[in-house]
Amino acid sequence: MQISSSSFHNAVDQLSSLPGIGKKTALRLVLHLLNKNGKEIHDFGAAFTDLAEHINYCKNCFYISETETCSICSNENRSENIICVVETALDVIAIENTNQYKGKYHVLGGIISPMEGIGPSDIKVNELIERVKSQGTEELIMALSTTMEGDATNFYIYKKLKDLNIKVSTIARGIGIGDELEYTDELTLGRSILNRIPFENTLTL
Amino acid sequence: MQISSSSFHNAVDQLSSLPGIGKKTALRLVLHLLNKNGKEIHDFGAAFTDLAEHINYCKNCFYISETETCSICSNENRSENIICVVETALDVIAIENTNQYKGKYHVLGGIISPMEGIGPSDIKVNELIERVKSQGTEELIMALSTTMEGDATNFYIYKKLKDLNIKVSTIARGIGIGDELEYTDELTLGRSILNRIPFENTLTL
Repeated sequence: MQISSSSFHNAVDQLSSLPGIGKKTALRLVLHLLNKNGKEIHDFGAAFTDLAEHINYCKNCFYISETETCSICSNENRSENIICVVETALDVIAIENTNQYKGKYHVLGGIISPMEGIGPSDIKVNELIERVKSQGTEELIMALSTTMEGDATNFYIYKKLKDLNIKVSTIARGIGIGDELEYTDELTLGRSILNRIPFENTLTL
Repeated sequence: MQISSSSFHNAVDQLSSLPGIGKKTALRLVLHLLNKNGKEIHDFGAAFTDLAEHINYCKNCFYISETETCSICSNENRSENIICVVETALDVIAIENTNQYKGKYHVLGGIISPMEGIGPSDIKVNELIERVKSQGTEELIMALSTTMEGDATNFYIYKKLKDLNIKVSTIARGIGIGDELEYTDELTLGRSILNRIPFENTLTL
């Protein structure tokens, strides 16, 4: 590549630093941007310098917010008594899109993973425990991934809260709605049999 | 999505305006950026505001360059007599990577496409013709796509230069090296038979 422009290479490098975007794709994307006029390219960049300046996290639940407390935490129609614990802001968005949950959230910002050197102090676990204690939360819904790390995090939080008489639940794991039994993996199918629910409960949905 | 941050949404919108990046991917990429520190996010954006300010095109061949003439045009070891005509800067990069071409380039910035309303005046065709006339170029290698639009552009340029005694060639179309005959489409295979080359010519490579 013989382009004598450091700003061009810099832009390509920055884009290819994003996950899933290789050098060649980044090159194509930057050339696409260059087809736009100067103001549009500038606006593209400004969106991110702006983000760097203004982005903040809710001091309560660590969800993304420009204000001190996020729109979910400051929404009085949502129950204070129930907190859904998730890994990232993406999970909050996914759960919000279901329109099935009317409590608050707590974004851990990661899960405990000894293999990657991520301990409880690296994520917002202690903040969660403090919050639960001071707020008098009644129920905690653990909505982490079903991986070894997710299970470890669930267990860590469960143990920390054991003496506090707080109900800790995890979201249901089972066969997806519309999925066929024969294509479901054994682990999920096995769990869905172990965690079977009374038929009457499904009628109320 | 209930994120109360316009800078967040703006960044997502800007990323998803790029080709091949949907809303969900953009969301994921911005959240990935947010895991970095403020300076890194700022640098990401600054790369593009910087690009908007500094990017320029070579006044000669319209390749990307921060200086008035690009590194290829100002390279005295490259022949002035032969110009390879391409559609975009990406094509220059692709040809440069082959290390087989030691002439100059001309980046049209598009091809003539009546369907999309792109005429000769929308791309750098007239600049090419002026350049060829004033420079006394001996050969023009047309390296455009083999589409109807590419053929139309080739023909337009060919007709404009017909009276000037300039050799106009197109890059060879045929079966890719390593490809098998039985999997090649009929059009390509047919062309490779029509445009067959003397065996001795392949020995000199």
